[in-house]
Amino acid sequence: MADRTRRDEQVSATRVALLDAAERLFAERGVHAVANRQISEAAGQGNNAAVSYHFGTKVDLVRAIARRHAERVEVGRVRMLDAIGESADLRDWVACAVRPVTEHLEALGAPSWYARFIAQVSADPALRAVTVEEFAAGSPSMRRLQEGLEGCLPDLPAEVHAERAAMTRHLIAQMSAERERALADNAPTARASWQGTANGLIDVIVALWRAPFTREG
Amino acid sequence: MADRTRRDEQVSATRVALLDAAERLFAERGVHAVANRQISEAAGQGNNAAVSYHFGTKVDLVRAIARRHAERVEVGRVRMLDAIGESADLRDWVACAVRPVTEHLEALGAPSWYARFIAQVSADPALRAVTVEEFAAGSPSMRRLQEGLEGCLPDLPAEVHAERAAMTRHLIAQMSAERERALADNAPTARASWQGTANGLIDVIVALWRAPFTREG
Repeated sequence: MADRTRRDEQVSATRVALLDAAERLFAERGVHAVANRQISEAAGQGNNAAVSYHFGTKVDLVRAIARRHAERVEVGRVRMLDAIGESADLRDWVACAVRPVTEHLEALGAPSWYARFIAQVSADPALRAVTVEEFAAGSPSMRRLQEGLEGCLPDLPAEVHAERAAMTRHLIAQMSAERERALADNAPTARASWQGTANGLIDVIVALWRAPFTREG
Repeated sequence: MADRTRRDEQVSATRVALLDAAERLFAERGVHAVANRQISEAAGQGNNAAVSYHFGTKVDLVRAIARRHAERVEVGRVRMLDAIGESADLRDWVACAVRPVTEHLEALGAPSWYARFIAQVSADPALRAVTVEEFAAGSPSMRRLQEGLEGCLPDLPAEVHAERAAMTRHLIAQMSAERERALADNAPTARASWQGTANGLIDVIVALWRAPFTREG
């Protein structure tokens, strides 16, 4: 029994080391530019086949990296939604879209790689489907958030609504990646803190949903 | 002399064929997933070294693709700026940021690959520098646009201004890529036309610049 537990712990530590190494190398060099062998080496694994043994294909590995972060963001979002009151307004709901992401990135410390990893994967023709599967289907907390948000929105044509939901996702993803990159490069950042980045995003996303719209045709 | 001209034309046609093939393959499979040999084959070039002979490295090829589109967008933007009146307001200037891009994509016809190519290159750690060099430095028309825009903006702290300029760029790039991808996949699009996408972007970007902001600290 003790042996079994020790072996499970070892496997778990190996998986974490491989995920950490893959995430960093992917963000620094590009997902397709990194071979599984390089990930194994960077994770201190003597066995070059460690990645395929523990994760399968590169797509599976990308999914595992996305998932471990999504799980932590989900925990933060559930906590934030549980604390939201009856009188919550549009800004409160938008904050539940933004802050669980920026707070997760802040908790990772600088340099982190997750935000750039997600931006890269989302733009990649072969890997994009992974993020669509993992995120677009929506977690339980995202569905609660969407319902709450709906209750505070002006009446919008379906195409405007769909478009603004997509814009919200892109703004959060791209501005997070931009700040993460600047922190990693010791370059100047627009804001002094992740909290500031979150405020800037919330200010704009609230205005985005309330913006007057041009009718088509 | 005639021989010289004919040879120049031939070289020019080869370059165009290589750029067309590279752009398509990069958007469909990913820049790093495509070998120069595959580009030469897709362009109907018997010589596998055609890409390196005509363009140099992959980074040089990426730059050449970005540049040929940027030049056409620039022409459209100069025309639009020349037509702008003395009484132009924020919406008119924002339109000069959005429409030259959406009109270029519309002119390319579906399927086009440029918007997805740019989104992919911007998220790639190794290739990102190319788009920064080509775009961030700014074309003459972008500088005219920025000056015009400045005159219509509310007073904003430097960090909020920088952030909103970045958000403007991300929204145009990401929403263009999203529509281009949907058109290429015969998937449903939020809007019926590029004109509709442009209107949706302009509505939101105007609101973004006018949004109240949270002060830091």
